[in-house]
Amino acid sequence: MTRAVARSHPNIALVKYWGKQNEQLILPAAGSLSLTIDAFPTTTEVTLDDRATADTFSLNGVPAAVGQTARVSALLDIVRAVAGVDTFANVDSISEIPTDAGLASSAAGFSALAAAAAAAYGLELDSRALSRLARRGSGSASRSVIPGLAVWHAGNDEESFAEPVNGPDVRMVIVTLSTGAKPVSSREAMRTCMLTSPFYPAWVASTKWTLDGALEACRDNDFTRLGRITELHANRMHALIQSADPPIRYLTPQSVAVFDAVAQLRAAGRSCYATADAGPNVVVLTTPEDAEPVARHLAELGETRIVGAGPGAAVIERGIEP
Amino acid sequence: MTRAVARSHPNIALVKYWGKQNEQLILPAAGSLSLTIDAFPTTTEVTLDDRATADTFSLNGVPAAVGQTARVSALLDIVRAVAGVDTFANVDSISEIPTDAGLASSAAGFSALAAAAAAAYGLELDSRALSRLARRGSGSASRSVIPGLAVWHAGNDEESFAEPVNGPDVRMVIVTLSTGAKPVSSREAMRTCMLTSPFYPAWVASTKWTLDGALEACRDNDFTRLGRITELHANRMHALIQSADPPIRYLTPQSVAVFDAVAQLRAAGRSCYATADAGPNVVVLTTPEDAEPVARHLAELGETRIVGAGPGAAVIERGIEP
Repeated sequence: MTRAVARSHPNIALVKYWGKQNEQLILPAAGSLSLTIDAFPTTTEVTLDDRATADTFSLNGVPAAVGQTARVSALLDIVRAVAGVDTFANVDSISEIPTDAGLASSAAGFSALAAAAAAAYGLELDSRALSRLARRGSGSASRSVIPGLAVWHAGNDEESFAEPVNGPDVRMVIVTLSTGAKPVSSREAMRTCMLTSPFYPAWVASTKWTLDGALEACRDNDFTRLGRITELHANRMHALIQSADPPIRYLTPQSVAVFDAVAQLRAAGRSCYATADAGPNVVVLTTPEDAEPVARHLAELGETRIVGAGPGAAVIERGIEP
Repeated sequence: MTRAVARSHPNIALVKYWGKQNEQLILPAAGSLSLTIDAFPTTTEVTLDDRATADTFSLNGVPAAVGQTARVSALLDIVRAVAGVDTFANVDSISEIPTDAGLASSAAGFSALAAAAAAAYGLELDSRALSRLARRGSGSASRSVIPGLAVWHAGNDEESFAEPVNGPDVRMVIVTLSTGAKPVSSREAMRTCMLTSPFYPAWVASTKWTLDGALEACRDNDFTRLGRITELHANRMHALIQSADPPIRYLTPQSVAVFDAVAQLRAAGRSCYATADAGPNVVVLTTPEDAEPVARHLAELGETRIVGAGPGAAVIERGIEP
């Protein structure tokens, strides 16, 4: 193979990834649980180029910044080492994440890249191996390899991959609040928490038992327990982040208002629980029945979009370039 | 003495009291630092009544609820045990804390009660002994015995009292945002944090070293360091509270907006740092020079009032009833 195209989708964590035990190999300090969603895919084409003297990377048709290209190249280096091939590649990526959606693009981006690069360089990787490879690009990308609910295990390089989890049929309402850039990148904020928060060791320990509880809730098909854990855990992640020195706060007054509105909806009988990643937007975990009314109610606070479980990363085209 | 009147003022903590090592004796898990302010005093009269068969307690001219009267009576029991007197008392208390100020009334209330009761029952207590006595009514009352900046030491019953601290000349801007009742009492929330937050042990440990830093900043007359510690520590307390199960959040969207505004004022060159207790109101630690402009700027977000260092609890009248 000298050319492959793969597509992958973002994922939203119910039990968060926040902290590494190994920065080089991107091994997480604790496991996590997420839903790969059925919206906002990234489609990435990797084409080997015998005459190239370096990798190139374009995003949405525009040559990417040096730092972004270096991260792409680093993942290609891993693929080339395994494949025993030296050839550089041209990488073209189209992200359908609206720039104002505030969703992290790296999970879909690096899982699509891993799938396309493996295929283009002729590697036959099973889902675990592909998840491990995607992880090297961006930790949460390991989960976007898997469709729907996915658990990403902590452990050593061999053990740390994502795999599917059976659980309740859920929907998510993404509430978009801000078009502004993040004040601090999640990679940087994670590092600050690890270095400065007195709560960090307890956060890691609690994430482990929280994940155990969430997996039990999935196994028991217990949406309420899963939702309760999701919101509790999101509060703890933002508490951890706020406890850094200097304090970091991703949640704006508007985000807090959405958490309040979700609590009110719950008091009124709706099944819905709020979470938020390293940004101001809030994602509401809900049921197929309650997704519409919840989205309708929250529309006065931000732009809403209902999403469900999406497919894992997949190669959608292969070919030998002429 | 059979009658005494004492007056005391609220205090605002820079390093917070949040967690007990002994609930019965109200011994804190860590020390704390506060400013007794020059506004909103409570004035309390204790009159021994030979013919009474129980203590009575009226607040602002209205007989208090049974639970409040029981807490007052419990403090009088301690005084009576030391004085070797059995006589019950009538307690009349006038609080000048506006009900919508959202300031805790128990610190001024129990320190005024301790001072008046000790005098009425004929005890001669020095400042340490009075602080220890006030502590038994409400932990933070131990600090309102002391004028201005006060450190309240953790330790056993003998060791846990407040005493004065020399430090920079500061002002506080109290920003009142809400007239609503607290969703959870601070006593209850503190207990929930102790029982359910995975961050609680680290909170206690970090409060200890935070207090050491704050006392160093006071000794060095270093307002900037003291302010920075104050805001960092407030963020950590609210992070701890948010990490409880179920999560508790005292800060409303409006509170968050004040924290943001304070950061902006600081970026514009003002010396100001935000803190908040177990409620939505924000208190801004600032300098004598910056108090006016800071208060003016924050007036668009809430009602503001500038306060400074106030006096400690003091007996203002003594007498033998006819």
